[in-house]
Amino acid sequence: MSDETETGCRVELTRGAVVESRHRVHVAVVDAEGRLRAFAGDPDLVTYLRSAAKPLQALPLVDDGAFDRYGMTLEELALCCGSHSGSAAHTAVAEAILAKAAMTSDGLECGPHAPFDDDARRALEEAGLAAGRVHNNCSGKHAGMMMLARARGWDSAGYHRPEHPVQQRVLGEVARWTGLPLEAIGLAVDGCGVACFAMPLRQMALAFARFAAAVRTGERGPATVVQAMTEHPEMVAGEGRIDTALMRVAAGRLFAKTGAEGMYCVGVPGAELGIALKVDDGASRAVAPAVLGVLRELDLISEDDLGELHAFAYPDLLNTRGEVVGQASAAIRLRTPDA
Amino acid sequence: MSDETETGCRVELTRGAVVESRHRVHVAVVDAEGRLRAFAGDPDLVTYLRSAAKPLQALPLVDDGAFDRYGMTLEELALCCGSHSGSAAHTAVAEAILAKAAMTSDGLECGPHAPFDDDARRALEEAGLAAGRVHNNCSGKHAGMMMLARARGWDSAGYHRPEHPVQQRVLGEVARWTGLPLEAIGLAVDGCGVACFAMPLRQMALAFARFAAAVRTGERGPATVVQAMTEHPEMVAGEGRIDTALMRVAAGRLFAKTGAEGMYCVGVPGAELGIALKVDDGASRAVAPAVLGVLRELDLISEDDLGELHAFAYPDLLNTRGEVVGQASAAIRLRTPDA
Repeated sequence: MSDETETGCRVELTRGAVVESRHRVHVAVVDAEGRLRAFAGDPDLVTYLRSAAKPLQALPLVDDGAFDRYGMTLEELALCCGSHSGSAAHTAVAEAILAKAAMTSDGLECGPHAPFDDDARRALEEAGLAAGRVHNNCSGKHAGMMMLARARGWDSAGYHRPEHPVQQRVLGEVARWTGLPLEAIGLAVDGCGVACFAMPLRQMALAFARFAAAVRTGERGPATVVQAMTEHPEMVAGEGRIDTALMRVAAGRLFAKTGAEGMYCVGVPGAELGIALKVDDGASRAVAPAVLGVLRELDLISEDDLGELHAFAYPDLLNTRGEVVGQASAAIRLRTPDA
Repeated sequence: MSDETETGCRVELTRGAVVESRHRVHVAVVDAEGRLRAFAGDPDLVTYLRSAAKPLQALPLVDDGAFDRYGMTLEELALCCGSHSGSAAHTAVAEAILAKAAMTSDGLECGPHAPFDDDARRALEEAGLAAGRVHNNCSGKHAGMMMLARARGWDSAGYHRPEHPVQQRVLGEVARWTGLPLEAIGLAVDGCGVACFAMPLRQMALAFARFAAAVRTGERGPATVVQAMTEHPEMVAGEGRIDTALMRVAAGRLFAKTGAEGMYCVGVPGAELGIALKVDDGASRAVAPAVLGVLRELDLISEDDLGELHAFAYPDLLNTRGEVVGQASAAIRLRTPDA
């Protein structure tokens, strides 16, 4: 389907009067019954869900009782679903989750990386400190996994390994929502050291559609996870990032989660729809223009809301002098499958 | 030519057993007479030459007499052709160029950005200093442009503006080697603030082929520029970067220059060939695997040399824990145009 790939969804970077670079984007839009409602590129492309799996990975905290037993706040649950910026607020919430389970960040198995948040990064530099594991954008997910182990009575040591009961529990959840048998889910190691999940985009979109439908019917686990994400979008990513900005503007009408290498998933409870999107080359800079373009094509976002998100949909390209030298924008035409 | 685009040249990132992301690459291989000798994707793709223009931008320093008048070293000339890492050695050479023309880095018009070089970046952080204009990877090119203005008796103020005689002189050089009329060269603003040049890949490859042929016949300007680049490859990029590593291994058999947004050009004096390569999506991570794959396909690099460059051709993908979780590799089949 090279034609669809070329014309379906792409993000172009224009410098001066010339398109300098192009990102191809694959999109699958699926309803809760698994019907493909719209697509661009290859909706059956197999790739990794990456951090867009986090709402599914956080769900056992509610369903298995940790959320209630440890008196978690929605803010804390949101951080477990997040790829946070490592700001002081984010790391404080990660520490608070661990404290509630009588654990510390010493047990985190995610690797350290410099915080995305400028203030946090500068504060570390000025203090002459290296970034710690708690600054890893996945430290909320990891803290939640440690808490899940504690709640279930499992030794938390090695909680990141694929054979650990925490990871087996999470894998079962991924199978449940995607509708895939366990053996059809490809496993590899994510950036933070836990398993990540390979499957067709269509199955990722189905998982988000079914999750959205469960929210609509008030199933407690998914409803609590999505309430956490939409009431605390600042915990799901951070200031100046698309997940946070989009969920703020959407005010509960959708939940959204980014993943590394150009992944993005959206669930829309009201329409019982799921959207999975993958930038073919993995570029994060193409994600926001593509996501907002797809939501516009599907009439799932208003022109007013798009206006508020203009800088995400049409980001300026600045040079080292601070001059605007170009712009990114999405060109999208979704296709409807033949009946 | 969507078929060629799909099958001609791509760089794949594999995580676990699944290709997670893909980069399409366009390639044009041209001889000094302008014959297209091999290609992948669209050899007529119009994009920006970016910093791969630097050998052409540096040439007037030799041809207009600045190199001789100011007693420039080959090391200094190499930095004028470079996108350097901002190491202490690089910035010292930039300052030396300016001192020879009785100027200082206060006059540089490139914007500041943090050095690519880890030691230099840490030294600035530890001293609590912001990066300066001299750390910009293009500061050698800019220093050369200021020196050219001085040598030609032009006021160096505003040397970065397209209407300044320095930029007009450079534009004429770009037209000369690409064989394009001035009005066919697209102009926009580069990352460092001077003009960058849009044209088909085929013309970029022709420029490098003609430059290579001029080196072979001993024309002083091109021969001096290429001698500088190949004798001081550490000034053209920096430690751990492909231009430097490739030119060290090739020991004078080729000259190579990267450009932003996935550009790369190579000139091969012995074969009088030029190669221009563009990663469609602009990703720098795909450049080295693609360039080395193309050189291998063209039999322009030996298996021994490729062995030394293995980490560039097949870079490991590490996660935040330092674990190898994947690898990049190029899949290339160049096509020969129908006679």
